[in-house]
Amino acid sequence: MKRAAASMIFGFWICFGLACAPAEKPEKTASEASTAADSAASMSAQDKALWTKAKGLFAPLPERIPAPAGLTDSPEKVALGKQLFHDPRLSKSGAISCNSCHNLASAGVDNRSVSLGHGFKTGSRNSPTVLNAGFHTAQFWDLRAKDLTEQAKGPVLNPVEMAMPNEADVVTRLASIEGYQVHFKKAFPEGEKPVTYQNMAEAIAAFERTLVTPSRFDDFLKGKAEALTPEEKQGLEIFINKGCTACHSGVAVGGGMAQKFGIIKPYANRKDGGKYDLTKKAEDKFVFKVPSLRNITRTYPYFHDGAVWELKEAVKIMGETQLGLSMDPSEIESIVVFLSALTGELPSEAKILPELPPSSAKTSKPSV
Amino acid sequence: MKRAAASMIFGFWICFGLACAPAEKPEKTASEASTAADSAASMSAQDKALWTKAKGLFAPLPERIPAPAGLTDSPEKVALGKQLFHDPRLSKSGAISCNSCHNLASAGVDNRSVSLGHGFKTGSRNSPTVLNAGFHTAQFWDLRAKDLTEQAKGPVLNPVEMAMPNEADVVTRLASIEGYQVHFKKAFPEGEKPVTYQNMAEAIAAFERTLVTPSRFDDFLKGKAEALTPEEKQGLEIFINKGCTACHSGVAVGGGMAQKFGIIKPYANRKDGGKYDLTKKAEDKFVFKVPSLRNITRTYPYFHDGAVWELKEAVKIMGETQLGLSMDPSEIESIVVFLSALTGELPSEAKILPELPPSSAKTSKPSV
Repeated sequence: MKRAAASMIFGFWICFGLACAPAEKPEKTASEASTAADSAASMSAQDKALWTKAKGLFAPLPERIPAPAGLTDSPEKVALGKQLFHDPRLSKSGAISCNSCHNLASAGVDNRSVSLGHGFKTGSRNSPTVLNAGFHTAQFWDLRAKDLTEQAKGPVLNPVEMAMPNEADVVTRLASIEGYQVHFKKAFPEGEKPVTYQNMAEAIAAFERTLVTPSRFDDFLKGKAEALTPEEKQGLEIFINKGCTACHSGVAVGGGMAQKFGIIKPYANRKDGGKYDLTKKAEDKFVFKVPSLRNITRTYPYFHDGAVWELKEAVKIMGETQLGLSMDPSEIESIVVFLSALTGELPSEAKILPELPPSSAKTSKPSV
Repeated sequence: MKRAAASMIFGFWICFGLACAPAEKPEKTASEASTAADSAASMSAQDKALWTKAKGLFAPLPERIPAPAGLTDSPEKVALGKQLFHDPRLSKSGAISCNSCHNLASAGVDNRSVSLGHGFKTGSRNSPTVLNAGFHTAQFWDLRAKDLTEQAKGPVLNPVEMAMPNEADVVTRLASIEGYQVHFKKAFPEGEKPVTYQNMAEAIAAFERTLVTPSRFDDFLKGKAEALTPEEKQGLEIFINKGCTACHSGVAVGGGMAQKFGIIKPYANRKDGGKYDLTKKAEDKFVFKVPSLRNITRTYPYFHDGAVWELKEAVKIMGETQLGLSMDPSEIESIVVFLSALTGELPSEAKILPELPPSSAKTSKPSV
């Protein structure tokens, strides 16, 4: 009975997830479509069946995350965003940058349960990866920011994160840096005073939209059956058949919806109410954003509280809490093998460290 | 009289500085020598005189800092060193890497008076830049480490820096990471157990020896008179004539010797005894390493205590404390203009972020 209930819920969520995020499935170009058709012709029947199923649930990563309607991610905006992403002057101490917790050298995370912010203070939630994050339907574990731009404004002012006292102090500091005056003007040529908090966040978001990590799974989705090993294909089969794709689907293999953590069985940590803590609505109790599974082997520890360090353990808990399944170890192992094929690589441009423009005599000093 | 005494001291130091660091002046290849001769032929008499003087005091940067005798900086060692340099798992908290305080996005420093270590604790000395640091005669402000390898071993175990409890814990953590097992083996193929604390430090040092930043001043030294503006040449002339080159000479424009801070007039901060605090010898009182002036416009704040944020102010204090000079503002400005020509760029390979190998189930967890 539990299983039936879960299936119904997931049937709904599949539709919801896909309907919610139509922009996640970029249309194929004519040449892509014909390549896929050529590949499909040479596939084994088994591969073709799996590929067809997978195509209905996922989509390969485009080269870049599309900018929201009305915005353009110009090279100047992306370059500025990269500087800001790496600039510790966005923090009161001058020691914490976006990259401190979303380290591009380690899959866009800090591999800590919770991050260490100003004065080594901690929050209660794990820093999610910034890689492919622009595909998410909303940002933060409780979905409180509608997009990357809104997200980028948060940590800078959070007292346990970067701890800047207010937007005006951030803008004053940035505006005192001659190089930023030049780069903001290039990135936002239309305004009189381009150095604004909004533009800072927009530039960071534009850079983050370049953080796309194509993997072997994308090659498979594009029709290259041999891109996955037989073991990985078996894992994908299990991943689909068990119902994991009810939530973890779309271009980011997750990130497309909110879901209760503990549908069938409660999750061990009941302290964090998720979206409920924000809305106080009963239906939001323990509701969190479904995380993307791309690069999941590298974004440990897992869950909103970063409490689980082993991917096998996380898969086991997911099966129990969300699907009411007691999977045997070989099934869990098989799913983990498939998930490892979701590890991708950043575009080479994104991996190049920027050169931060030097402060001026007017730039406010770091403090603790 | 004070001036005469200072000149005598500096006469000695010039010889000492150059004698101490013969390896700093790499020999010219035949083609370099002929290019320089061609350039010299077309120089104005004034340029030629300045160039000749400068060549006697400084040397252009080679492509890379030579490895110490008996060592080879293989590509594998450099690649491993880059990973380790960026890896926060070298710290107890898992949040502080070498790059946290020696940020390659900001000229190899953190632009703070003193760095923030474990628990936001601070030491009493400014983090010097890691760029071109391998040219220094010794490492740390008090010269207590003989080379980059010895230096790299320090901060990892310092309780106010990365705070790892001991070498064994660092090695155990690194050895638990499969990717490091592979990369250490490639970098140090000769040993049975390549993951050692010594090898960690040697790899970091090998990477740091690639952190060389050629500037327009190097082009000038190689015989391209127009590489410096007339104002910069004037600044160089003053820099030499005032006696700054007594200490700031050689390939790194400093870094080649120890010197008392406050020869003629005491420096304001008398709390830090420098080398004396280590040796307790009277002659070491207030003796510090002479810092390199390469990239000096970006490595603020200045001096061992990071107390001075303005380069003009630092030049003024240097003149007063070390040379007994009260330079007028235009002279100070002119020197600063010259110093700005020492800003160079990292090799493109050094700017590319590494991909850190993931932890295993055995890897010790970060803690605070």
